Amino acid sequence: MASRPVVAQVEPGYLRKLLPCTIPEDGENFQEIVDDYQKFIIPGLTNWQHPSFFGYFPVACTWEGIIGDIYAGSLFNPGFNWICSPACTELEVIVMDWAAKMFGLSENFQHSGCGGGVLQATASDSLLVAMVAARVRYVEEFPQINPSNFVIYVSSETHSLGLKNGRILGIEVRILNVEITDDFALRGNTVRKAIQEDLANGKIPFFLVATVGTTSTGAVDRIDELGAIAREYFIWLHIDAAWAGVALACPEFRNLCQLDAINDFADSFCTNFHKWGLVNWDASTLWVRNKKHVTNALDVTPAYLRPIARENVMIEMRNWKIGLGSHFRALKVWFVFRSYGVKGFQAHIRDDVALNVLFASKIMLSPILSLVSPPSLALSVFRIALPLPNLRLDQLNKLNKCWYRRLASRADIFVTHTEVGGIYCVRFAIGGQQTQAQHVLRAFEIIEQEAFAAVAGGL
Amino acid sequence: MASRPVVAQVEPGYLRKLLPCTIPEDGENFQEIVDDYQKFIIPGLTNWQHPSFFGYFPVACTWEGIIGDIYAGSLFNPGFNWICSPACTELEVIVMDWAAKMFGLSENFQHSGCGGGVLQATASDSLLVAMVAARVRYVEEFPQINPSNFVIYVSSETHSLGLKNGRILGIEVRILNVEITDDFALRGNTVRKAIQEDLANGKIPFFLVATVGTTSTGAVDRIDELGAIAREYFIWLHIDAAWAGVALACPEFRNLCQLDAINDFADSFCTNFHKWGLVNWDASTLWVRNKKHVTNALDVTPAYLRPIARENVMIEMRNWKIGLGSHFRALKVWFVFRSYGVKGFQAHIRDDVALNVLFASKIMLSPILSLVSPPSLALSVFRIALPLPNLRLDQLNKLNKCWYRRLASRADIFVTHTEVGGIYCVRFAIGGQQTQAQHVLRAFEIIEQEAFAAVAGGL
Repeated sequence: MASRPVVAQVEPGYLRKLLPCTIPEDGENFQEIVDDYQKFIIPGLTNWQHPSFFGYFPVACTWEGIIGDIYAGSLFNPGFNWICSPACTELEVIVMDWAAKMFGLSENFQHSGCGGGVLQATASDSLLVAMVAARVRYVEEFPQINPSNFVIYVSSETHSLGLKNGRILGIEVRILNVEITDDFALRGNTVRKAIQEDLANGKIPFFLVATVGTTSTGAVDRIDELGAIAREYFIWLHIDAAWAGVALACPEFRNLCQLDAINDFADSFCTNFHKWGLVNWDASTLWVRNKKHVTNALDVTPAYLRPIARENVMIEMRNWKIGLGSHFRALKVWFVFRSYGVKGFQAHIRDDVALNVLFASKIMLSPILSLVSPPSLALSVFRIALPLPNLRLDQLNKLNKCWYRRLASRADIFVTHTEVGGIYCVRFAIGGQQTQAQHVLRAFEIIEQEAFAAVAGGL
Repeated sequence: MASRPVVAQVEPGYLRKLLPCTIPEDGENFQEIVDDYQKFIIPGLTNWQHPSFFGYFPVACTWEGIIGDIYAGSLFNPGFNWICSPACTELEVIVMDWAAKMFGLSENFQHSGCGGGVLQATASDSLLVAMVAARVRYVEEFPQINPSNFVIYVSSETHSLGLKNGRILGIEVRILNVEITDDFALRGNTVRKAIQEDLANGKIPFFLVATVGTTSTGAVDRIDELGAIAREYFIWLHIDAAWAGVALACPEFRNLCQLDAINDFADSFCTNFHKWGLVNWDASTLWVRNKKHVTNALDVTPAYLRPIARENVMIEMRNWKIGLGSHFRALKVWFVFRSYGVKGFQAHIRDDVALNVLFASKIMLSPILSLVSPPSLALSVFRIALPLPNLRLDQLNKLNKCWYRRLASRADIFVTHTEVGGIYCVRFAIGGQQTQAQHVLRAFEIIEQEAFAAVAGGL
């Protein structure tokens, strides 16, 4: 795997030229098909499992996770209610309670209490479920309001899913600014000011997305401040910790991730095991403080789905998810949890954080590179900055773009770029199962060399 | 597989008693884990792949599909834009055009034209994307309207996803009645009457779900009538053919499925390969006539997702889906299409329809059972009816419920019930890969015996 390029070296439209334009009339030999997979598909795959893949956020790929999916696929059933596969529903409830305990989420979020967790496909789905639950909760509490006045708050650093889900629901999304002086974290005062303005204009603030580990810089919003305000105004507080949330497995990162404030204030919490959490796609989690709000919103049970005599005993998964059916996601989660144990899971997180400390220290010592924000867990964000103090921001951004273009054209490492507070910069996210110190150090060398080359190339 | 019970024989809560209540501290041996899978999980699975499973609709499980998922899982990447895996995007475009051709969908729905298809997880997701696209289209065309007046039309036989997605979007869903005299198909006049009433009340009809193969009886709505009306009122016509749509692969079923009207009028069309279409979960399809409506609605591209220099060349999958990322669904579709070929796919559909003709003929000859609606492809719906002509409907329903309770308590076959036009009845859906004539005949014997027993038991 490490011998192949990280980034696919193909041109747009390459595959159309290689494949016929219709399904064959007669079935083909499977050996031919898998040969074509090697020949035509593999070269067109960007290699997210390459030890030198540092783009976006990592995606998990463990053999335990793969085996879980193979087992689930071999006896496929869409676990939309209890009877259509009891083990699917029950194991999902169990592993979600297991995970809640490992993360230190309070009993409020466990199925033994009023809350509970379920597995969703993506953090977008988790957020969408939370938004719909929040809207229904608000309308039930204040039936006289006009839902077209609803407004959702996200920060400028919230993942695009906030904006997209607002678009999907047809609800206005207000993007709140964050400051570099706050390390790009959303602050309470910013939200309070927006709420007061919006209320004065007849709008109805009802939902706030706070992020633990933003995509651009890994910033953690000030949940302690936001939580109190959300409660004051009956605003649903959703925590999107899609990437960073799994670090809660390690007690030493809980303060950073604001676990206490999450336990005090969050109405819903999401993290993705399929990013940094060792479970293969798809294993996004959604925990809610009050399960009634979710099922109130999503239960539209028709007759043919009503099992006889077993209602109200087990939760029915379809009432927690956007779609009706889903596959047996809990199985791979169970395999991974048991195979790694809490200690193995913690070691995985700690190893990657240590690698990032190594990488960030190299950046800090570089004569040409500079961190844009503090390293966050396994993510560093940086740019060319130090040697050219007299450049205006737009000139510096131009230089950094030129540098990124050099990095993006390479096949041997993959990093992504971002723009934060008007600053163009490069992200370096660690988390591949095969990434070791040598890969991180080699990546740093390449990154620094290309930076020197970009500066030498001038503007 | 056939030696195990069809329906899981466990009580709610069984698994909680068998598993520890936390993740183990230390990792466990994988052999122990898979032994526990056999011991604890397998008995809790309802066996959807059992040859005597006739409930709900079938779910596909082919080894080609499983291998496709194994390959995709082993090199997992979330194909949300072209560069983050070119082959994922390109193969999806190709197999969707392949499938459109196999089904006889017009060029309008292919990527070479203004339209195109993508793979979604579920028919619910496909519908949700269509609804959001329709809402944005309507608001762009008539910016002065108030979106809170929108109304969606579904029939009383539309799958619950219509109602659920309306709930999700916070849009009123109006359920229109269908008549037994129309074989439970939605007619144009019913819709026209509702539109006129709603317009008179200031509502805005903007979306209509027509079903090809309803869940209860396999009814096909009158798309020819509905299409003309939808066009007249600028209503988006979505065809939900989740189960039956794959029958379009056989020319002899195209008339029944109203292919011409779909090609003339549909704005979007969905069928699920993972039901009756040989591809393992998840492979729901969504074709749209105008891709601009989808991407207009769902594209919220932030900087860090914008690939350099390659924009506008290939479609970006994230702008066609609710979530951001998804896995490499197209691979298993490609494997199945090539391994079966068009002829193999057709043979699969035809074999199941032939089995249902056999089953329905037994029902028609039974002294005690009677079809409630004409057999539809591989689905029959029937009840106890003939021998007791003097029973009122509620008495007959009670008798049929009693009969169904007997059927539901058996471990050797699985059928589901429904209620349509006030009539309680039993559904029999054929489609398991291992189901043969002997299983269908044996199921009929059981069903008829239990009917006699229920009648003998009296009311």
